[in-house]
Amino acid sequence: MRIVILGADGYLGWPTALHFSARGHDVVAVDSLVRRRWDEECGTESLVPIASIHDRIARWEEVSGRNIAWHQLDLRDEVSTAALIAAVRPGAVVHFAEQRSAPYSMISPRHGIETQANNLLGTLSLFYAVRDHAPDCHIIKLGTMGEYGTPNIDIEEGFLDVEHNGRRDRMLYPKRPGSVYHLSKVHDSHNLEFACRIWGLRATDLNQGVVYGISTDETALHADLTTRFDYDGIWGTVLNRYCVQAAIGVPLSVFGKGGQTRGFLDIRDTVRCIELAALNPPAAGEYRVFNQFTEQFSVLELAERVGHARSVHGLETAIDHVPNPRREAEAHYYNAKHQHLLDLGLEPHSLSDTLIDSVIQTVEQHVGRVLRDTIEARVDWQRGGGLYRTEESARHLEVAASR
Amino acid sequence: MRIVILGADGYLGWPTALHFSARGHDVVAVDSLVRRRWDEECGTESLVPIASIHDRIARWEEVSGRNIAWHQLDLRDEVSTAALIAAVRPGAVVHFAEQRSAPYSMISPRHGIETQANNLLGTLSLFYAVRDHAPDCHIIKLGTMGEYGTPNIDIEEGFLDVEHNGRRDRMLYPKRPGSVYHLSKVHDSHNLEFACRIWGLRATDLNQGVVYGISTDETALHADLTTRFDYDGIWGTVLNRYCVQAAIGVPLSVFGKGGQTRGFLDIRDTVRCIELAALNPPAAGEYRVFNQFTEQFSVLELAERVGHARSVHGLETAIDHVPNPRREAEAHYYNAKHQHLLDLGLEPHSLSDTLIDSVIQTVEQHVGRVLRDTIEARVDWQRGGGLYRTEESARHLEVAASR
Repeated sequence: MRIVILGADGYLGWPTALHFSARGHDVVAVDSLVRRRWDEECGTESLVPIASIHDRIARWEEVSGRNIAWHQLDLRDEVSTAALIAAVRPGAVVHFAEQRSAPYSMISPRHGIETQANNLLGTLSLFYAVRDHAPDCHIIKLGTMGEYGTPNIDIEEGFLDVEHNGRRDRMLYPKRPGSVYHLSKVHDSHNLEFACRIWGLRATDLNQGVVYGISTDETALHADLTTRFDYDGIWGTVLNRYCVQAAIGVPLSVFGKGGQTRGFLDIRDTVRCIELAALNPPAAGEYRVFNQFTEQFSVLELAERVGHARSVHGLETAIDHVPNPRREAEAHYYNAKHQHLLDLGLEPHSLSDTLIDSVIQTVEQHVGRVLRDTIEARVDWQRGGGLYRTEESARHLEVAASR
Repeated sequence: MRIVILGADGYLGWPTALHFSARGHDVVAVDSLVRRRWDEECGTESLVPIASIHDRIARWEEVSGRNIAWHQLDLRDEVSTAALIAAVRPGAVVHFAEQRSAPYSMISPRHGIETQANNLLGTLSLFYAVRDHAPDCHIIKLGTMGEYGTPNIDIEEGFLDVEHNGRRDRMLYPKRPGSVYHLSKVHDSHNLEFACRIWGLRATDLNQGVVYGISTDETALHADLTTRFDYDGIWGTVLNRYCVQAAIGVPLSVFGKGGQTRGFLDIRDTVRCIELAALNPPAAGEYRVFNQFTEQFSVLELAERVGHARSVHGLETAIDHVPNPRREAEAHYYNAKHQHLLDLGLEPHSLSDTLIDSVIQTVEQHVGRVLRDTIEARVDWQRGGGLYRTEESARHLEVAASR
């Protein structure tokens, strides 16, 4: 299959590109490289050093004997996006190329507007390019479980069968997202459902949970193939942050009561889910939604899981309940379906002490690179704020730049 | 009340500004004037000549003795938008300032992206300005009944009480819009509900039906106060188009079977509905939705109503079923609630032969200005296309420019 990976320089885009390339698919990697610039702006950095996209691709060719094509492109450049799709005529595009941090979207009006502009308009530009130049192409779009929010009823996979005043309809599941970023994904979902219904495109909308872990079969093959690892208050996901806190011996910071329950999955399941979607495309005109996660946890339960994994080695882990910078329910009903990917053959990796241990070991190897001041969440959902650019990070980034 | 009218140079924004000014409110009129440039681009023009915004405001002061303040502003300029809201500190803002044509949004990828960028980002910029500089201000936002699409269940006012697997929640009504423009309004609604829920803003989302008519008490006072009248295939609404076709003696063009049923209202009810919303603001943090229309008709029924009004005068009117350029159901269930504005005191103007007669009379006064080639709908929902710029319109616009 000829497959375009958009956002191929990112945390998940890069492992996904490798996963498809390793299986013999013809991979075209595309990225604007804006993620690395956002790090500079925020004063944040991947804990694990990551190679440049050029070095990554060269190393992959050396290690695997397989070639990945590379294009630098911002999807908002609709002319170049159309030209790329027309030239490649892919069988599938996997679209990771969005600003994907809720805190980033809440820093300031400029950051919120930038997030919705980047995500919505770039993605719309992609839909037009596919419509006009590769209408049979399967669009595999990364959404988020956060689109649903925390409704008081079961979360279904994209659609809800409604009975009302004696009549029935099957409707898009109502959304109630919790950040300007999550809103952008809700908007994308509506645009994509429209593109399938009106223009006859075929698409899979993957409402992904929170990803943890750092390593896939392919990224583990060489240090230059490693993907980024974010633990800070803007880009870090919760389990990764806890693992860093455990490794450096500070309390795990749980926002508020910690009853916030979400769907989670291992990064190895992310790449497998994308593969399963690609290998089983929908019909022309079909818009389908898969909830892409494997287990539900509250953020407090996750902290306790990390504490348990440490205690096996005789280590004590403290848990701090810190003021919640977000506006969200801290105790709520949560029951989200996630059957479709299992039906296609997903064999989930459950969260294990072993996984937690291995992440913490990775952190320990790079412990000198931890920017401690960036761990604290500083973006308040009401007042914004939150760039780091501390003296520590400035010094660190200066050293990095001089290398 | 100090009230900002955004989009105050438009079909409905201008009569709304006059309506509030006439009732003694302190009105600040804001517009980017892009609507007049879009006419130039499309080769379209208001049937009735309209004065410049400066002449309109000067004439209003002369006729009424009341002053309307004027600011030219594009809401996408977030710095200037914030400065305006900070300087005026309005009690309410009425937001008409969006690209409001479904066909325009379907002309090409560029037009679709422009529509979503203009509407979504300008509106988001407004929400931030209100949050940061006038948090008690009541945002009165024009949505559209088209956000709902044509579901097989009753359409409620913004929310749906859902029972599912033995549990209940009150959720945003699921949307299934029919154009890239209608999608932009769905996105706005999600952003606005979020702004109320998370930032504590107060807002009324007015899901308006299709407006007909041309005259309000205030616009009728002087020719310079007239609002625009669009009948063409891009900007025209359906009853206005039928009236032009009847006046020039060509068949009324019904898209396909004509069973497409929508909510409609008289322009005099539009300005009254906005006033009722403004006089009865929601609580801080409340997001409420009113369905703003008064009667349901299918587009074929509307054509038959025009035919009936003409037959009273002994005139025959032919109806043509033309190929439908849109992708939409041409026979469907439609039952939309519209109780909230009635509860606030709206006394609807029903569609009458008299109203149809008066619109046709207005057309007859300006019949020499009808650009016949622009009446035909040229924007195909699949293939796009559809600017006019015919020789006739080019000649006409040239003459207009030389005046």
